Amino acid sequence: MKIKAGIIGSTGYAGAELIRLLSQHPEAEICWCGSRSYTGEEFSSIYRNLFRVVDQKCMDDNMEQLAAEADVIFTATPQGFCASMMNDSILSQAKIIDLSADFRLKDVAVYEKWYKIEHKSPQYLPEAVYGLCEIRREAIRHARLLANPGCYTTCSILTLYPLVKEGLVDPSTIIIDAKSGTSGAGRGAKVANLFCEVNESMKAYGVTTHRHTPEIEEQLSDACGQPVVLNFTPHLVPMNRGILVTAYASLADGVTAETVEAAYEKYYGEEFFIRLLGPGGCPETRWVEGSNFVDIGFQLDARTNRMVAMGALDNLVKGAAGQAVQNMNLMFGLPENMGLTMPPLFP
Amino acid sequence: MKIKAGIIGSTGYAGAELIRLLSQHPEAEICWCGSRSYTGEEFSSIYRNLFRVVDQKCMDDNMEQLAAEADVIFTATPQGFCASMMNDSILSQAKIIDLSADFRLKDVAVYEKWYKIEHKSPQYLPEAVYGLCEIRREAIRHARLLANPGCYTTCSILTLYPLVKEGLVDPSTIIIDAKSGTSGAGRGAKVANLFCEVNESMKAYGVTTHRHTPEIEEQLSDACGQPVVLNFTPHLVPMNRGILVTAYASLADGVTAETVEAAYEKYYGEEFFIRLLGPGGCPETRWVEGSNFVDIGFQLDARTNRMVAMGALDNLVKGAAGQAVQNMNLMFGLPENMGLTMPPLFP
Amino acid sequence: MKIKAGIIGSTGYAGAELIRLLSQHPEAEICWCGSRSYTGEEFSSIYRNLFRVVDQKCMDDNMEQLAAEADVIFTATPQGFCASMMNDSILSQAKIIDLSADFRLKDVAVYEKWYKIEHKSPQYLPEAVYGLCEIRREAIRHARLLANPGCYTTCSILTLYPLVKEGLVDPSTIIIDAKSGTSGAGRGAKVANLFCEVNESMKAYGVTTHRHTPEIEEQLSDACGQPVVLNFTPHLVPMNRGILVTAYASLADGVTAETVEAAYEKYYGEEFFIRLLGPGGCPETRWVEGSNFVDIGFQLDARTNRMVAMGALDNLVKGAAGQAVQNMNLMFGLPENMGLTMPPLFP
Amino acid sequence: MKIKAGIIGSTGYAGAELIRLLSQHPEAEICWCGSRSYTGEEFSSIYRNLFRVVDQKCMDDNMEQLAAEADVIFTATPQGFCASMMNDSILSQAKIIDLSADFRLKDVAVYEKWYKIEHKSPQYLPEAVYGLCEIRREAIRHARLLANPGCYTTCSILTLYPLVKEGLVDPSTIIIDAKSGTSGAGRGAKVANLFCEVNESMKAYGVTTHRHTPEIEEQLSDACGQPVVLNFTPHLVPMNRGILVTAYASLADGVTAETVEAAYEKYYGEEFFIRLLGPGGCPETRWVEGSNFVDIGFQLDARTNRMVAMGALDNLVKGAAGQAVQNMNLMFGLPENMGLTMPPLFP
Repeated sequence: MKIKAGIIGSTGYAGAELIRLLSQHPEAEICWCGSRSYTGEEFSSIYRNLFRVVDQKCMDDNMEQLAAEADVIFTATPQGFCASMMNDSILSQAKIIDLSADFRLKDVAVYEKWYKIEHKSPQYLPEAVYGLCEIRREAIRHARLLANPGCYTTCSILTLYPLVKEGLVDPSTIIIDAKSGTSGAGRGAKVANLFCEVNESMKAYGVTTHRHTPEIEEQLSDACGQPVVLNFTPHLVPMNRGILVTAYASLADGVTAETVEAAYEKYYGEEFFIRLLGPGGCPETRWVEGSNFVDIGFQLDARTNRMVAMGALDNLVKGAAGQAVQNMNLMFGLPENMGLTMPPLFP
Repeated sequence: MKIKAGIIGSTGYAGAELIRLLSQHPEAEICWCGSRSYTGEEFSSIYRNLFRVVDQKCMDDNMEQLAAEADVIFTATPQGFCASMMNDSILSQAKIIDLSADFRLKDVAVYEKWYKIEHKSPQYLPEAVYGLCEIRREAIRHARLLANPGCYTTCSILTLYPLVKEGLVDPSTIIIDAKSGTSGAGRGAKVANLFCEVNESMKAYGVTTHRHTPEIEEQLSDACGQPVVLNFTPHLVPMNRGILVTAYASLADGVTAETVEAAYEKYYGEEFFIRLLGPGGCPETRWVEGSNFVDIGFQLDARTNRMVAMGALDNLVKGAAGQAVQNMNLMFGLPENMGLTMPPLFP
Repeated sequence: MKIKAGIIGSTGYAGAELIRLLSQHPEAEICWCGSRSYTGEEFSSIYRNLFRVVDQKCMDDNMEQLAAEADVIFTATPQGFCASMMNDSILSQAKIIDLSADFRLKDVAVYEKWYKIEHKSPQYLPEAVYGLCEIRREAIRHARLLANPGCYTTCSILTLYPLVKEGLVDPSTIIIDAKSGTSGAGRGAKVANLFCEVNESMKAYGVTTHRHTPEIEEQLSDACGQPVVLNFTPHLVPMNRGILVTAYASLADGVTAETVEAAYEKYYGEEFFIRLLGPGGCPETRWVEGSNFVDIGFQLDARTNRMVAMGALDNLVKGAAGQAVQNMNLMFGLPENMGLTMPPLFP
Repeated sequence: MKIKAGIIGSTGYAGAELIRLLSQHPEAEICWCGSRSYTGEEFSSIYRNLFRVVDQKCMDDNMEQLAAEADVIFTATPQGFCASMMNDSILSQAKIIDLSADFRLKDVAVYEKWYKIEHKSPQYLPEAVYGLCEIRREAIRHARLLANPGCYTTCSILTLYPLVKEGLVDPSTIIIDAKSGTSGAGRGAKVANLFCEVNESMKAYGVTTHRHTPEIEEQLSDACGQPVVLNFTPHLVPMNRGILVTAYASLADGVTAETVEAAYEKYYGEEFFIRLLGPGGCPETRWVEGSNFVDIGFQLDARTNRMVAMGALDNLVKGAAGQAVQNMNLMFGLPENMGLTMPPLFP
C-alpha cells in the first residue's frame, strides 16, 4: 500500500515541486493538496504544467483532519505555521516533514531572534531531526518530526561540512557568498520580484542578517565541536532555479589539495546525490537543474593560504522538495533515491 | 533483453536530450554515443548534467559498425548525412530513426529545392514513414526507416491537423506565426547565437524561406486531399526551450467553437501527449517544458471570420528527442509513453 | 524659459521613462512627478536609476493645481482617469498629452465597448489629435489635447500605413502577430508578471479581444478610406523592452518588392525616427532598445501572394514616453527630435 | 575643432560601446573604426543599433597611419596588441588610451606571469598612467599613454579604495566575490557563451587565477603603502551588462559605520560618477545599466567584525568605454563628464 502524503502550502513553488515529485513517486500517493489561497480550485488550473498529471482540488490547511488521513504531512508554509499547529495528536498519527524553519534551530532564543516571531511549540525542538540526509541519515530513519533544511543552508553546509569536520580550515574565517535563482523568493505578488525588476540585474540582500545564517552556523558548529560564526551573503540572480555557493576559508597548516579531496571523498564518496568535481572543478547551476544532485568543487590558493569551495544545487529540488522526498524515503524505509533519479535538464 | 540504441550526433542539443531520455528508459540501453567533434571524450565531460548518469566515451559516426551492434540507430545529424549513409545492409540490421529532414519529404525535388543539397538515397523515400505518432501510428509500428518530424513542424501540424482534415478552415488562408526558444538554433559556435545577441531581443528569420514550410504543407495537403500552400514565419525567442505556434485561417461556413472543439476531441481526445485547452485556452511554453506534451487551444473571431489556433511544445522533447523515443516505443511494440511520462518542469 | 512639464502616473514604467527622457531634455524641466501610490516619497527612491538625476518628491494627482503650474501635462494613468479629469479650465491652462487610451478612438461607442468603461468627457474627442507624429504632424503642432498612441498600435500602424494608404495590400486580409517585452504589462504586483512566471516562456493573450485592435483599425481605415477589420494577436516575451510586429496581408495585383519599397520611401524616407531595412530586412528589437527608432523591413512571398511586413520599436520609448516627448516637441515648436537622439543601447 | 578619435578593435562589445558614446560626444568625432575581422564593411551593418547613427566603413588596424590622422587612439584589442604596436612616433602624434591590460601593471614580470605573454614595450610602462579617474585625476590630465582599467578592477578598487587608504580594514583579509554580465566575456564565437549555455545558469571561473587580480592588488597596495594579496573570484551571470562586487574584510579596531561612511564621503563625496548609498545600501546592477555611474553601499557585521562593501557598475561603460571617454575628457581639458551624463536605462 502506498504512502499517503498530504501537503500544506502546495501552491508555493516548493510545494508545487513537491506535488510534481510525489506524483511520480512509485510508492507515494498524494491525498491532500493544501492551499489556503486556492481552496476549492483544481490544483492543475494553478500549475498547468501538471494538467492531466495531478487531478485534485486544493484543500484547506486543516492539519488535524489531514493527520487522520495521511501517513506523512509536508508543510511548505510560512515560518511559524507548523510550530503553531503541532501537537501530540498530530505527531502520533502522521510523520511530519516541515519545509519551513520552525524546527531547524535547536535553540529557541536563536530562532526568535532571527525570525522575530515567538515559537509556539518549543517542546518539540528536542525530538525534531535536522533532515540533511547525507549527514544525519540514521537519525532521520527514526524521526517523526523532521526539519527539512533551507536551500541556501543545504548548499552551504554540504560544501563546507567535510572541511570543518576534518579541521582543514579555520572555522573563524568562513565567508559564504551565495547566489540564488528567483524561485527562492517565492510566488508572492511583490513588485521586487516582477520580471522587469529581476531580469538584467543582480543584487545582494539580507546582508549580515539573512535567516539561514544561524542554521548554517549551528550545523557547522556541531561538525567541528566549537562555535562557528560566519558571514553569509545571499544574492538574487535572474534565473529561475539554482543556488551557487562560493565559500572562502583559511587553510589549516599543511592542508593540500589532496587532503581536501580525500576529505570530500571520505564523507561523500558513496553518496548518490553528491557529485564531486575535484580540485579545480567549478560547479554550474545548469548542470543540476531539475535534479536532486549537489555538485561540489574547490580550489586552493597558495598566495593567500585560503581555499575556495563551491557547491551548486537546484533550490527547489535538493534545496527543498527533493530533499523532503529523500527524507520521506528514509523515514519509511524506502531506497533513499526512489523517485529522485531524474537527471538534470539541460539546456 | 533491452533495446540497444546508438545515437549519431549525440552532442548536439537534440542528440543530448535523446541520450538523457534513453538513459532513463526502462527498456533501452545506450550502446553508442556518436560525436564527430568529441570522439574519444567522456560524454559527461561535455554534457555535465549527465555526469554519473551516462558513463560512456564518444564514438565516431561509423554507421556500418553501429548497425551491427545496435537494434536502433538515431541520427541527430546535419541534413544530408543520413541519406548519404543509408544502404540495404544498414536497414536490414537496425531500425533507423532519422531526426534530420532527409526522409521527411516524399518529393525529392522539393527536398533538393528547399535544402539546396542533392539527396543521396532517394530510393528509400517511398518506404520511409513520417513519424508523427498521433497521425501515423499504424505505419510507424511497421517502419524500419523513420523520418522524425521537425520541431516547428510537429507543433504546426498537430495544431492544424483536425481543422484541415475535417474541412473546418480554408486551407488557402493558413498563416503560421511560430516562435522558438534558442536551443532550436543548435549548439554551433556562432556570433548570432551568443547570449548577448539573443538575450533581450526578438526577431523573425527565414521569412518565406524556412525549410520546415514544405514539410508542413505536405502533411496538411495529405490531410485535406488538396495542395496546401501557406505562410510560415519562425521567430527566435530569448528562452532555452519551447515552441509556440499561432496559426490563422478563415473558417468554413457554419463552423462554431463547438465544431472546432469536437474536431480536436475526435482526433486527440484519447492522446496521452496532447492536452486540449479548449476554446479560449492559450498554451504557454512554460507548461510543457521538459515534457513530451503538446498543449493546444484556440479562439474564433466572429469579426473577421477567422480562427486563431495555438500550440505549444518543448522543441527538444516532443519536437525532437521525445518524439523519437515515442517512435521507438511504437516500432518495438512497447507502450507508446514508456520513458516519457515525466511532467513538465516549472518554473 | 523652459517648458514646465508635469507627469501624472510617473511611477509606472512609461511614466518613469518619461521622467528619464524629460530630465535630459534641453528645453524642458519637470515640475511635478505625480504618483498616487508613492506621494511624498523621493522619486529616486523608487526608480533608483535616477538617483542624483531627479531630485523631486512624488506629488499627488491634483490635475487642477498642476494645470496652473505646468505648460504641459502628461497623463500616464489607467484608462478613464484622464477623461474623468478633463475640463475647459485645465485645457485652457496647459497642453495635455494623454498616454492612456481615453482620447485615441473617435467613436465613443467603440471606446466603451472595448474598454468596458464609460467615457466621462466625450465632448473633447473631436478636438483630440491622435499623436502619431509621422502621420499627423501638422495637426499635432496645433493640438492642445493629444492622444498618445499605444505601443502595439504605433508599431502596427507604422509598419502597415504606406501599404494600406497606397492600396498595395488587400485590407481585409491583414493579420498582425505582435510580440512584446514584459514592461508592456506594467509595474503592478501580479503573480502572472513575476520573474519565474514570465521567464523561459511565451504565450499569446487577449486573443481577438485586445484593446489596441480598434485603434489600429481606425487609423488604417482612415488611411485607405474604407473600414478595416483585422486580427491582432499580442504575445508576451521574456525580455524587458521591445515590440516586434509581424504583419501579413495579401498583395494587390502587380505589386512587387520595388513598389513596396517605393511606398515606404515615399512616406518615411525623410523620417528621422524610421529606419527602413528594405526588402528582406528583418527588424530585431535589440537594435532599437532605448531609442525612439522604429525599424521596418518586409518580404514578399510569390508562393502565397502575400507580404510579410515587420516592425520593431522600444515599447517604452517610441511606444510611449519617447513618442510623447516627440509630440511635446511638435506642440511647442521645437525640433521634433530634441532630447530623443540617443542611439539604441546594445547589448 | 573637434577631437579626432580613432578606435582599433571597434567591433568588440567594448569597442562598439565606445563608438556609441563617441558618436554622441559634443567635442569628438570618430575618424577610424578599426576592425580586423570586418575591414571594409559598414560598421552599422555589424552593430545595427547604430544604423543611421554611425556612417563609416570598418578600417584595418594600421596604427601608424591612424596616429597621423587622429588626436586620440583607443585600443580595444586583445592583450599584447597595443604593447606590440607602441613606439615613439605614435606617441608623439596621438594620445593613446589602451583598454587592454598592456600598460596597467607597473611590474613587467607580474604582467608576463599572469598574462603568459611577453611584453613587447616595457620601456613605456613608467610613463603610462593608470586611468582610474577618481583616484589619479591629476596624472591623467597630463598623460599621453593611458592604461584604461579593467571592468572588474574598476568596480573592485573603487569599492575598497577609501577603506584601504584610510586603514579601516585589514588588507590581508580582503576577499572579493565579483559577478559579471556576459558582455564581459566578449563577442567571440565560443560554445561556452551561447545563449543556451549561459542562460539559466551561474558559475565561478578563473578561480584564484583571474588576470584582474594583480591589477587590483597593485592599486590597493599603492593606496595603503603595503603589499596587498587578496582573493578575487569572478562569476558569470545570465544578463547582458553589469558588474556587482561583494567585498569582505576584517575591520580595524574601533571602526564604525560612521567612520566608514565618512571615508567614502571624503574620497567620493564630490564625485559625479560615484553614488554613495550609505550604510545598509545594496547596489543593484539594474540601477546603473547604460550609465557611467558606480553605486557603492556597505554593511558592518558586529558578529564577525567584518564589513561587506558592495559596488555596481556597467562593465561596458564605467568598466570600459565610458571610463575611456572620461579619461579622454581629462586628457583634453574638457569637463570630465562631457558626453557621459545619460542616466541609467531601466527596466
